[in-house]
Amino acid sequence: MIKKLIDEIVKKDAPIVVGLDPMLSYVPAFLLEERKEALGETPECAADAILEYNKKLIDAIYDLVPAVKPQVAMYEQFGIPGLKCYFDTLKYAKEKGLIVIADVKRGDIGSTSAAYATAHLGNIKIMNKEYRPFESDFATVNPYLGTDGVKPFVDVCNECDKGIFVLVKTSNPSSGEFQDRLIDGRPLYEHVADKVVEWGAASMDGTYSNVGAVVGATYPEQGERLRKLMPNTYILVPGYGAQGGKGKDLKHFFNKDGLGAIINSSRGIIAAYKQEAYSKYGERGFAEAAREAVLAMKKDIKENL
Amino acid sequence: MIKKLIDEIVKKDAPIVVGLDPMLSYVPAFLLEERKEALGETPECAADAILEYNKKLIDAIYDLVPAVKPQVAMYEQFGIPGLKCYFDTLKYAKEKGLIVIADVKRGDIGSTSAAYATAHLGNIKIMNKEYRPFESDFATVNPYLGTDGVKPFVDVCNECDKGIFVLVKTSNPSSGEFQDRLIDGRPLYEHVADKVVEWGAASMDGTYSNVGAVVGATYPEQGERLRKLMPNTYILVPGYGAQGGKGKDLKHFFNKDGLGAIINSSRGIIAAYKQEAYSKYGERGFAEAAREAVLAMKKDIKENL
Repeated sequence: MIKKLIDEIVKKDAPIVVGLDPMLSYVPAFLLEERKEALGETPECAADAILEYNKKLIDAIYDLVPAVKPQVAMYEQFGIPGLKCYFDTLKYAKEKGLIVIADVKRGDIGSTSAAYATAHLGNIKIMNKEYRPFESDFATVNPYLGTDGVKPFVDVCNECDKGIFVLVKTSNPSSGEFQDRLIDGRPLYEHVADKVVEWGAASMDGTYSNVGAVVGATYPEQGERLRKLMPNTYILVPGYGAQGGKGKDLKHFFNKDGLGAIINSSRGIIAAYKQEAYSKYGERGFAEAAREAVLAMKKDIKENL
Repeated sequence: MIKKLIDEIVKKDAPIVVGLDPMLSYVPAFLLEERKEALGETPECAADAILEYNKKLIDAIYDLVPAVKPQVAMYEQFGIPGLKCYFDTLKYAKEKGLIVIADVKRGDIGSTSAAYATAHLGNIKIMNKEYRPFESDFATVNPYLGTDGVKPFVDVCNECDKGIFVLVKTSNPSSGEFQDRLIDGRPLYEHVADKVVEWGAASMDGTYSNVGAVVGATYPEQGERLRKLMPNTYILVPGYGAQGGKGKDLKHFFNKDGLGAIINSSRGIIAAYKQEAYSKYGERGFAEAAREAVLAMKKDIKENL
């Protein structure tokens, strides 16, 4: 699957993934108002408005970027209607030819991780028939439980041609609290990186592995070091834009082949219409504003590589 | 909320939580067969059979134990019908007066953890109305992202009188890979325990905190040490029974007040009918077998405290 992602990155000349993380405050008010009469002030109303928002965003950007990354928490908070919206969003993105990175950060003991891997990357067998629970191509995975919590995901990657990105050094301010602590003179995240390389060796797909890593744009020095430690690992880089990561910080996340990293932006794209720079589009032009923001991000990354 | 859990533990004289982790292989075949004609070999059929299985299990044990712990992965793997079954299972357990521990192991950057906390412990506001996305009282939380990934859960605990259990030392065989590594001479899990105490101080509810910890029954020595390190922290102890933890291993997870720990068993209870010891109940007696297994577990724990 990583090969397919790389092909799409090269084809669209964009190492960019758009995070579909629809906080209700990002959703233009008119989308909610239009549905309020029929659906009431309900989770169903919110979910339907978010689905329309996502579809219009996807329509506006699907020819520019290889992938989208829905953050499942933003859907889970609306209960079952929210998760139905998540399901429909994945389906719509796939129909538009996009690769879907499910930002689920799952991870548990072996048998439970196997169930999560089935949910997000695999097929569930019901008696004699098989179904895909959710239509995603990659999932993000939490490594705290060690190898037996990650291996079931790697197994499904191999069975179903899928991929994962394992949390190594996250983008948030307190990520260093545990991740930066020194073990035998090296930070925990480097030990996790060693394991990512080991796990990844069991699922190579061309030059890179289906087992990738998450390293935040907000930690460029650590990114440079991790790039060298994991030469065949694709790095998913969140934290660009709204979280503070800048184009000039991204250079060292890439390998000399120009590959090896894919940069995520969520708020900076999907809520671009709220920024001064895109105010001319107004609330009803949210999708065009998102398209402009993708083009600006593309330029920013190009100029800094 | 921890006070409420303790009250129920004392009232029912059972520091026991039953894990509702319905692998399809645990569900008696007749429950699937009964639905196959109407629903086909579909996720809807599986979900409906699991819901019936859960309800019958709850009916058989609700007067014996204070709480159930559904593992969401086992439902997520059936897609939307599975999550609807999860929702209905929580609702049914609440109707029967049980406390629900959502075993979701979520954790992310701050804004995303806030969404997860809303989903599993809080209320979602849609314009002027509020809804509960999922009816749970506690959630399990992964600490890898540090304080800003956990704090939103603690905030919701305080706002909505709920609780969490943070992964400290997990029950699985490879949990030591990262968790046991020494930082300044102490294993990572002890550093996590220090933070659990710190986070917990902000949500005290009587003698104990609403911020609990997960420590596997499979690591009794570490449990003893962690018990002392976190005197006011309730410990959720998985790994008893099928994973290898025994009654005699549990003693040191408890404080001298006889409180401080709640032991989970999943497979050993809900699939008891598959064990030699309960074979007389047969497949159709799965609920009675579960009840017997709870009584046996209660006895085993009592004898060893």
